[in-house]
Amino acid sequence: MAVYTEVGDEELAAFLTEYDIGEVVSVKGIAEGVENSNYLLQTTRGQYILTLYEKRVEEKDLPFFLGLMEHLAAKGFACPTPIPGRDGRSLRRLAGRPAAVVSFLRGLWPRRIMPEHCSGVGRALADLHVAAADFTMTRHNALTVDGWRPLLDACRADGDQVARGLIETLDAELALLEERWPTDLPVGVIHADLFPDNAFFLGNELSGVIDFYFACTDFLAYDVAVCLNAWCFENDISFNVTKARRMLSAYVRRRPLTLPELEAMPLLARGAALRFLLTRLYDWINTPAGALVKRKDPLEYLRKLKFHAQVRGPEAYGLSAEECCVA
Amino acid sequence: MAVYTEVGDEELAAFLTEYDIGEVVSVKGIAEGVENSNYLLQTTRGQYILTLYEKRVEEKDLPFFLGLMEHLAAKGFACPTPIPGRDGRSLRRLAGRPAAVVSFLRGLWPRRIMPEHCSGVGRALADLHVAAADFTMTRHNALTVDGWRPLLDACRADGDQVARGLIETLDAELALLEERWPTDLPVGVIHADLFPDNAFFLGNELSGVIDFYFACTDFLAYDVAVCLNAWCFENDISFNVTKARRMLSAYVRRRPLTLPELEAMPLLARGAALRFLLTRLYDWINTPAGALVKRKDPLEYLRKLKFHAQVRGPEAYGLSAEECCVA
Repeated sequence: MAVYTEVGDEELAAFLTEYDIGEVVSVKGIAEGVENSNYLLQTTRGQYILTLYEKRVEEKDLPFFLGLMEHLAAKGFACPTPIPGRDGRSLRRLAGRPAAVVSFLRGLWPRRIMPEHCSGVGRALADLHVAAADFTMTRHNALTVDGWRPLLDACRADGDQVARGLIETLDAELALLEERWPTDLPVGVIHADLFPDNAFFLGNELSGVIDFYFACTDFLAYDVAVCLNAWCFENDISFNVTKARRMLSAYVRRRPLTLPELEAMPLLARGAALRFLLTRLYDWINTPAGALVKRKDPLEYLRKLKFHAQVRGPEAYGLSAEECCVA
Repeated sequence: MAVYTEVGDEELAAFLTEYDIGEVVSVKGIAEGVENSNYLLQTTRGQYILTLYEKRVEEKDLPFFLGLMEHLAAKGFACPTPIPGRDGRSLRRLAGRPAAVVSFLRGLWPRRIMPEHCSGVGRALADLHVAAADFTMTRHNALTVDGWRPLLDACRADGDQVARGLIETLDAELALLEERWPTDLPVGVIHADLFPDNAFFLGNELSGVIDFYFACTDFLAYDVAVCLNAWCFENDISFNVTKARRMLSAYVRRRPLTLPELEAMPLLARGAALRFLLTRLYDWINTPAGALVKRKDPLEYLRKLKFHAQVRGPEAYGLSAEECCVA
C-alpha cells in the first residue's frame, strides 16, 4: 500500500494548473512502494507519476533527490525526470505534503531474477556513477556504518524475540565493521537502494531506474555491494555466483573498480547486509502485525551477512583482479 | 490496498499470449478498491485493467458480471468491456485466481460531490437500467432483505461494543423492514453499489461506471435508494435535498418511476441504509484494527437510516409524484 495521503478533486485541479502537462483524465493510486504516496496521472499529453512525500523522507533532502534525477536524465540516464511547473520549480506542495510530478517510465520490475537482469543492473549502476560524477550536491548517507549503532541500540530490547542470540551476533558484527570499515575508497553519488522493484526492464533490457530517495554520497563500491545482496541470492539465500559475475563484469566494462575497491567488496557486502538487516529489524519490531505496510523478514539478511562473512576474498563474487581492475 | 495476489513475470507473459492486445510495457498495482486485485496494464496498443478475483467474489457469479459488462458496453453504456482472449473467452485464470482483462476507462471519481455529479449519476443509473432490460441472465441479491438477518445475527455478540443499544435498534428496524418490504415493484438488473468511487467523471460529465461485482437482479428503485444514500448526504450526514432532486429528476427523464416505486422510496432508502450499516458493522467487528483494508464507519449509516425513518413521504427527496411518475 503506497497511498497514505488522499488528494481532493479541487486541490489536485488547482495543483495541476501550475503545470503545462495537459488536462488530467485519470488518477490512480499505485499500490507498490512503501515510503511515499504515488499516483499514476494520465493527462491529454501523456502519463506522469505524482509523488507526495511522506514523513520518512526528510523535506530538506528533496532538492538533492530531485536535482539528482534532473542531472541524470539530462545526461541520458533512464530515470524519472522531474517536471517543472510554469514557474520553473519542480517541488511544490499538495494536500499538506511536499509533492512533485515526474515523467513516467516504461518497463516492469522483475519478480524472478535472471542472469540477464544482473548484467543490466551492473551496467546501469556504473552508468549512474559515471553520469553523477559531476553532480555538485552532496548528501551524507545516514544509513552507513556510523548510522548502524543507533539502529542496533533501538532494537536491543526486543531483537532477541526475533531470533535467539541475534543482538549478540549483531554486536560482534558491528564492532568488526566499525573497526575495519574503509575510509579511502572512491566516493560519489550512490543509489543505495537498487533492489529489483526499483529497476524496470522491457524484455531483458533495463529500461530505467526509479526511487532515488535513499541516494547519497558514499563509496561507489558500496552501491555495488548493495546490489550483490539485492540481486545475487536465490530465494533459499544460496549465493548465485553466475549472477554476481554477470553484474560485476557489466559494471566494470563501464567503470573499472580499483584494486582497493575490489578487495573491500566482501566487507562492504557484509556491511550492506547488516544495513538492511538493521532497518528491517527495526521495522519488524516497530510495525504492528497486520499493519498497512507489509513487513520484510530481517533474518534473510542475517543469512546473507553470514555468507559474506565467510568468503575468502573477492573471487567469491566471480571476478578476479585482472578482469575488473585498473592499476 | 487492492493487490492481494502477486503475479510473476513468466506467468503474466504466458497469460497475455492468450490475448491480442500488444506487448506489455508497464504493470502497476492499483491501490484503490478492496474486493479484488487490480493492475493497470499498459501495452503497445493501449491501457487495460487486469483484475484477479479474490475470495469475496464467488467464481460462479463471474459469468453474470462479465456478461453484464459486455451487454452494457455493446449497448453503448460507458463501462469496462471484458476483452476476450484469442479463444473468445474473457474469463481465465492467473496466479491461481480467476482473472479477466477489461478496457480502461478515463475519468476520475469525485472526492467531493457536487450537485452536477448527482445529475450524472441519476442519468447513468437510468441508462444502466434501460440498457440491461434485455439482459437474460439473473443473479439473486444476497444482500437484500432476506440476507440481512443472518448478517445481524453474526454481529449480535459484539455489535453493542460499537454503539450502545445498536443491536436492539437494528432488531426493531429489521423487523419493520421485513414486514413492510415491497414485493411487486419493477425488477431488473441493478448495480447495487454505485458509490462515488465507482463513477468516473471528466469535468462535470460522467465518463463511466465501474465495479459491477455486486450487480444483481432486484427492484430497480432499490438501486436509486442506494444512490440516495451514497451521494446525497453531506459529510456531517445532513441530507442535501438539492442533490437528491438533481439525481431523481435526471433519473426519471430517462426512466420514469411508477407511483408505487416513488411511494416505496423512503422504505427502500431505509433498507439500503440498513444493508450498508450491516456489512460495515460485520467488517468492523471482523477486521482487526490496522489491517490492510481500511474499515468504514458503520454508524454513518445508522444516522442515514434514522433520516429515512423519519421522512413523511417521497417529497422529502425533492420530487413530487407529478414530476416523476408514469400513471
